Amino acid sequence: MPSFVHEFRVSWVDTDALGVVHFSNYFRYFEKAEQEFFEHSGSTQGNVMERYGVACPRVEAHCFYESPLRFGDTAATQLWLEQVNDKSVKIRFEITNRTAGRRAAHGTMTLVCVDSSAWKAVSIPEPVRAILRELD
Amino acid sequence: MPSFVHEFRVSWVDTDALGVVHFSNYFRYFEKAEQEFFEHSGSTQGNVMERYGVACPRVEAHCFYESPLRFGDTAATQLWLEQVNDKSVKIRFEITNRTAGRRAAHGTMTLVCVDSSAWKAVSIPEPVRAILRELD
Amino acid sequence: MPSFVHEFRVSWVDTDALGVVHFSNYFRYFEKAEQEFFEHSGSTQGNVMERYGVACPRVEAHCFYESPLRFGDTAATQLWLEQVNDKSVKIRFEITNRTAGRRAAHGTMTLVCVDSSAWKAVSIPEPVRAILRELD
Amino acid sequence: MPSFVHEFRVSWVDTDALGVVHFSNYFRYFEKAEQEFFEHSGSTQGNVMERYGVACPRVEAHCFYESPLRFGDTAATQLWLEQVNDKSVKIRFEITNRTAGRRAAHGTMTLVCVDSSAWKAVSIPEPVRAILRELD
Repeated sequence: MPSFVHEFRVSWVDTDALGVVHFSNYFRYFEKAEQEFFEHSGSTQGNVMERYGVACPRVEAHCFYESPLRFGDTAATQLWLEQVNDKSVKIRFEITNRTAGRRAAHGTMTLVCVDSSAWKAVSIPEPVRAILRELD
Repeated sequence: MPSFVHEFRVSWVDTDALGVVHFSNYFRYFEKAEQEFFEHSGSTQGNVMERYGVACPRVEAHCFYESPLRFGDTAATQLWLEQVNDKSVKIRFEITNRTAGRRAAHGTMTLVCVDSSAWKAVSIPEPVRAILRELD
Repeated sequence: MPSFVHEFRVSWVDTDALGVVHFSNYFRYFEKAEQEFFEHSGSTQGNVMERYGVACPRVEAHCFYESPLRFGDTAATQLWLEQVNDKSVKIRFEITNRTAGRRAAHGTMTLVCVDSSAWKAVSIPEPVRAILRELD
Repeated sequence: MPSFVHEFRVSWVDTDALGVVHFSNYFRYFEKAEQEFFEHSGSTQGNVMERYGVACPRVEAHCFYESPLRFGDTAATQLWLEQVNDKSVKIRFEITNRTAGRRAAHGTMTLVCVDSSAWKAVSIPEPVRAILRELD
């Protein structure tokens, strides 16, 4: 599977006084798709974090906004593995506004794997790496 | 149909530093279930608002918290029509944590129908009332 | 001091597509005023929680909405101690829209003191009680 | 004035289950500093938008995370004008965690000036440009 798609409907609370989704929420959509990808892979990020004692804070987040999303729009976030290193992974995202029939945004997020108590970068556990490879 | 159920999975961003869903987000879950109820009824709140020139601000929101929701938990929001008046409607909500097998919260929200330009209370349009009756 | 006042300016992200502050954010304003009250009292909720191993989840939150808040409005949240019991405390809030010169909302929140590891209700530590009495 | 600084205290709702500020909230801190800069300049973004019929959606947002922010931390967002074009402006941000004494994040946001009804890019109104030059 070269990519994963997560469909959702834009919530009212995501909009702002211009009548469009607030730009910060696109990053939340990116993250939500990530969560659903892990669920889809039969694992969950929560379990992964507990079992291996790791967490995955972002070290970089980048988004290009192409067209607005509005309340009630049906949208889909697609994600790909852009690059995987020993301790970090870069994921590429695209959000398509299916109601409007055009791309809404694209971007990347780089996550680093850290020991959740010491908050030090560590190697991505092999089972997590295996899940990520489904996106490659 | 006496009630409507909306299933969802708790997002990471909904949690706070205690490891549980922030109390304010339960109100967002209530509202999300409302949106999905309208979608399910073949209408959308966005269309209703546009077509009739009305909006539905809340005049009261109330929630009792019974047990925490955590990241990744599967939950379900159920809603019932508690009372419908000429210009307002009171909806009752319950959120069940399906992962933990217990109720997480319950509450009510009272919405008043207003003319979206004058922001004055007006009668609930009959087609909206018809949709709401599906919850009765 | 019979009450505490926290002034703030409405952020863009707090608004929704109706051009007003989303109703769920009023609860966040309530909580923010609580935090600033503790700061003002020379303590911090974070320190209190760490030192005494307690947390203060809400068991009830209630808000009545009276008039909208809009982007850039200056507002003030005032809080009073409504009732303090052995293990719980009820705080009353009012938000005034200073830009519009009228009350925006009022409500209450009931917090229960829990042991943060066992998540069981415990007596409010005396030093926390002393801080709360400043609101009485 | 070559830059503008906005001080704030991290709110509880901004944290996530790792005990740190959720990465998406840094973009909200960036935007908040922008709002406070306009207020400081004797104008307000709301008035600017109304008077000139323009809005300023973001076309790009980018953040590098350097160290975590935690509940109650005092922080400061500093902003500079990175580049101003006819229809767009790029602003550079840095957030310093004053409690921890280190930089928390830095990034940029590019805003484009659009006609708020037609949603088409237009020249930045001269009075807005004058305000922005205070950051240069």
